[in-house]
Amino acid sequence: MAGIAEVAARAGVSKATASRALSGTGYVSDATRERVRRAADDLGYVPSAGAVSLATGRTQTIGVVMPYVNRWFFAEVLEGIQRSLLERGLDLTLYDAKPGTEGRARIFDDFLARKRFDGLIAVGLEPVNQELERLTRIGRPIVSVVGDGEETSVVAVDDDYAARRATEHLIGLGHRDIAFVGGAPESHWAHVDQQRLAGYQRAMNDAGLADRVRHVHSPVTMPGGYAASVDLLGDARRRPSAIVGVCDEVAIGTIIAARRLGISVPSALSVVGIDDHEFADMFALTTLQQVPREQGTAAVELLLAEIADPPRARTRLRIPSRLIVRNSTAPMDGIDPGAPLL
Amino acid sequence: MAGIAEVAARAGVSKATASRALSGTGYVSDATRERVRRAADDLGYVPSAGAVSLATGRTQTIGVVMPYVNRWFFAEVLEGIQRSLLERGLDLTLYDAKPGTEGRARIFDDFLARKRFDGLIAVGLEPVNQELERLTRIGRPIVSVVGDGEETSVVAVDDDYAARRATEHLIGLGHRDIAFVGGAPESHWAHVDQQRLAGYQRAMNDAGLADRVRHVHSPVTMPGGYAASVDLLGDARRRPSAIVGVCDEVAIGTIIAARRLGISVPSALSVVGIDDHEFADMFALTTLQQVPREQGTAAVELLLAEIADPPRARTRLRIPSRLIVRNSTAPMDGIDPGAPLL
Repeated sequence: MAGIAEVAARAGVSKATASRALSGTGYVSDATRERVRRAADDLGYVPSAGAVSLATGRTQTIGVVMPYVNRWFFAEVLEGIQRSLLERGLDLTLYDAKPGTEGRARIFDDFLARKRFDGLIAVGLEPVNQELERLTRIGRPIVSVVGDGEETSVVAVDDDYAARRATEHLIGLGHRDIAFVGGAPESHWAHVDQQRLAGYQRAMNDAGLADRVRHVHSPVTMPGGYAASVDLLGDARRRPSAIVGVCDEVAIGTIIAARRLGISVPSALSVVGIDDHEFADMFALTTLQQVPREQGTAAVELLLAEIADPPRARTRLRIPSRLIVRNSTAPMDGIDPGAPLL
Repeated sequence: MAGIAEVAARAGVSKATASRALSGTGYVSDATRERVRRAADDLGYVPSAGAVSLATGRTQTIGVVMPYVNRWFFAEVLEGIQRSLLERGLDLTLYDAKPGTEGRARIFDDFLARKRFDGLIAVGLEPVNQELERLTRIGRPIVSVVGDGEETSVVAVDDDYAARRATEHLIGLGHRDIAFVGGAPESHWAHVDQQRLAGYQRAMNDAGLADRVRHVHSPVTMPGGYAASVDLLGDARRRPSAIVGVCDEVAIGTIIAARRLGISVPSALSVVGIDDHEFADMFALTTLQQVPREQGTAAVELLLAEIADPPRARTRLRIPSRLIVRNSTAPMDGIDPGAPLL
């Protein structure tokens, strides 16, 4: 394969000029850059990544740390990040940091310290103990997706608002016995869970329903919501008339549990979620929409801006959710529950 | 931050020896390696990635190309790959190559040609036109997960066997009108679809049911299987007594459609899938199990072996699936459909 010397010779410039033209660092006239690029194309020249990195001080790589890749939210954010980086010719190095695993410790101890990236996007990470300190000590720009820390810029939906709006929708339909399903004190999703639970509680308080507040713990997954809802709905005496799921996956688990138990949704039970998950439409789920792919895109733009021009202050991008009414919620008094609700 | 010179001085060795000890290349006694490592730890020394790459000729990175990250199979394979690489201290660079997109063209034209990896795992890629030629021209070891090509080593389940076994299970229960749902001629999952469809057809032929073969096209997703099944099941005159889904996501879409239409599963309709998706248990779905996470792990082991010692022949690892009987399938004649089937 051709080297930089062959490219320089073909373009009629010095090796240093050819190198500058191809790496995009230092001044080269447009005409020369074009000539060198054409020579490189003609010869099939591809620069060595290691050499580019040493010459420019940039790795052309963005690191992404997330605790899961096999959950809807994380996979969608990752898609958004990947697409944005691809458009800009940047590589994505993925660090899958499952909470409480040895692998996660290794990522924080070894991998991140190698700094094989120009900047880092931390998705739903909720760093614990010394992790956050280690992250900021790396000395590379970091943007968080989800989270509430002061240490990095953040892109997130307004979780408190989303849960409040979901609860108000049910209250507006006449429901009083409204339970909140999902999340647990020890959950690794603590921040999101807590914000959403707080939004539900606030809406209940504001409507004079503080004594009806009920939080049913469950893993933040569809099977988790299913199992918790089978328990909750199985006892007819304690059954609520409406449920706010901490997210759509849990809310869909609730709908599946209700169907299994012969409880009709929405005529006997209203269910609302948060997310607008890809399955929400299939289950006719009323929900508060967020678009995680756009959060991934926004995080890339914010991070690249911070790499190019280190900011003095952190950016906090809070995205409001939109209520999407489908057919899983109906008025408490059952007046024409089949009609569309707006 | 400390450099290699400080590490060498502290360990009482030459810079070249310190470099060999830390990079793992060339001979260094165990005692010396240990001494250098301790010195590096004491000083908080982290080698520059670019320098390591130039010195060893290795990037310590494995590239992963896949068409989706937000589908169960791909996300699970990715988890398996990530965990295996993490254990070995290797980075994972992700290339998300959506079929037919401009981004995919760019990955094949630019990203892969940069060779910023020691080897490549191609998951469900089904390269088209010049893509395969480009992949092999990279001159790095490649292992495919899913696929049937001769050009790379392959890790895959035996899709033909899985679909045959699923169909035979239904035939054994007395079903004759068995439809196969999912996949389309133009699908990007063409290889898997075709193998599974072929396995279904073979089982039908072997049972003298060639004239009952029916393939209902649908996108290979839960909402896709749902929509196709609403159409298929809505017409009572043409309704089959059993359905093989091309994968669990499609089969679960079928179950959701049946519930929506008031068709009882399994007493009025048997449904079997392929995968053992994380939701299979929640829908009591009978299925042929595959464990994509293990395929990811196996692909890493195979790839690292090929990087260490380039093989003369390609390895083809075909994994048989196991039938898991849950409650979505029952005998045709409805004798005690609620009883567990073994």
